[in-house]
Amino acid sequence: MKSNSNSKAPIGVFDSGVGGLTVAREIMRQLPHENIVYFGDTARVPYGSKSRNSIIRFSGQIIRFLETKSVKAIVIACNTASALALEAVKEETAVPVIGVIVPGARAAVQATENGIIGVAGTEATIRSETYTKVIKEMNPEAVVIGKPCPLFVPLVEEGFAKHKITKEVIDIYLSEMRRTEIDTMILGCTHYPLLRSRIMAYFGEKVHIVNPAYETAMDLKKILNERGIANESGEAASYEFYVSDAAEKFTRLANTILSYDLAATKLVNIEEY
Amino acid sequence: MKSNSNSKAPIGVFDSGVGGLTVAREIMRQLPHENIVYFGDTARVPYGSKSRNSIIRFSGQIIRFLETKSVKAIVIACNTASALALEAVKEETAVPVIGVIVPGARAAVQATENGIIGVAGTEATIRSETYTKVIKEMNPEAVVIGKPCPLFVPLVEEGFAKHKITKEVIDIYLSEMRRTEIDTMILGCTHYPLLRSRIMAYFGEKVHIVNPAYETAMDLKKILNERGIANESGEAASYEFYVSDAAEKFTRLANTILSYDLAATKLVNIEEY
Repeated sequence: MKSNSNSKAPIGVFDSGVGGLTVAREIMRQLPHENIVYFGDTARVPYGSKSRNSIIRFSGQIIRFLETKSVKAIVIACNTASALALEAVKEETAVPVIGVIVPGARAAVQATENGIIGVAGTEATIRSETYTKVIKEMNPEAVVIGKPCPLFVPLVEEGFAKHKITKEVIDIYLSEMRRTEIDTMILGCTHYPLLRSRIMAYFGEKVHIVNPAYETAMDLKKILNERGIANESGEAASYEFYVSDAAEKFTRLANTILSYDLAATKLVNIEEY
Repeated sequence: MKSNSNSKAPIGVFDSGVGGLTVAREIMRQLPHENIVYFGDTARVPYGSKSRNSIIRFSGQIIRFLETKSVKAIVIACNTASALALEAVKEETAVPVIGVIVPGARAAVQATENGIIGVAGTEATIRSETYTKVIKEMNPEAVVIGKPCPLFVPLVEEGFAKHKITKEVIDIYLSEMRRTEIDTMILGCTHYPLLRSRIMAYFGEKVHIVNPAYETAMDLKKILNERGIANESGEAASYEFYVSDAAEKFTRLANTILSYDLAATKLVNIEEY
């Protein structure tokens, strides 16, 4: 358990599967010289319906794996793991660890005018009320309305993002929220940015849609600068991708999310960490 | 690795989650004196989108766990694990292991008149073509039309079984199959019997719907009798339930599937086996 101050060391980014690539994509865009090691826990995906204890155990194993890659910082690019495991796993490593909840909450608090904020997320994220707690620490007057949307992840994973049925599912989950006074809504799951245009169309222009990925990359940049570990070599970054299952399927999906085409994904037996 | 010939020993039944309870329920009904140890791998559910290697590793761990409960026979109450892992894990244990594919295929071959059989299942089950191979061994003339229906499991798990959206998803996946000449269709995933009435209504009376659970319990009975290990004590059976995650959620769902009310479910760290 030691800190890595080598500025050329990679950033570790992890998620339960492909969803976290929406965060990795933003890091690649904002921090083009940072090397990245990405891990997707495809053997145990999804996290959103599972318990706090399992999410903490899974996250701990992944952090131990990322440490073998000598990462200099870790981004939990998964709302469920950020909500349930961030505090617990921070204790286990000497490298800085950031999640997506605090950046997403901050962006929403900055964007809202009337202080009424909606959060769509997994069952586990919404039940944890982590977004509510974090938002209320930033603005005690804020009102937070959370809604679990458990079918959104399988709809995206099964290629239904653009199908008319997804419009109906959006209506089933979010019609009640649309009748409230929210002026800002957080896409509180890394898969949901892949439904962004559908959700924006559903709420219309009066609701500001927040994707925490953008703010998360900003936070990462700030931490690297503060600690003097930003990669200023000017070299082209290198990216490595690991999963716990079905590497080919991941590569195929990843190539639809990233602008960059990845050649191969390596398989890791994550239970051994 | 030794056989257990104690007739009072329990039957081990496992699935990726709650779906296998539709098989356990049928065993309870047909073999009311058999004790059962059920394991649901809720930490790693679903299996249907994962690779053969992972399914074999998961199944091996579960069989080693069930052996610690001194089971006298094992039923793989999951189509995906039966399709991908049965042959591999049979080698690892001395107790008889049966899956749901052979019984389901036999019921379909017996039911069909024109030899054209449909199979709805998970991505992994359909891709493996195990149903096709097994059916063709029983009847080389048979024509098998398989269709993966990956949204059926999340729809059931998220409580949408009776929602109108499920009717639309059934139409999306099965409209092509309805236009074929099939006269028999296998519900090739243990969750699907929970959509049975919707699927029956969709196909109408001319298609015979096969739920492999019934035939699986019959096969189990036959094996226990052949080996002289049926429980003939006449005592009331006892049932134990184990999961790898979220025991309370499992108990709640189980109580909607079983006629019998289970008091509690125990948690197991399955990765240790």
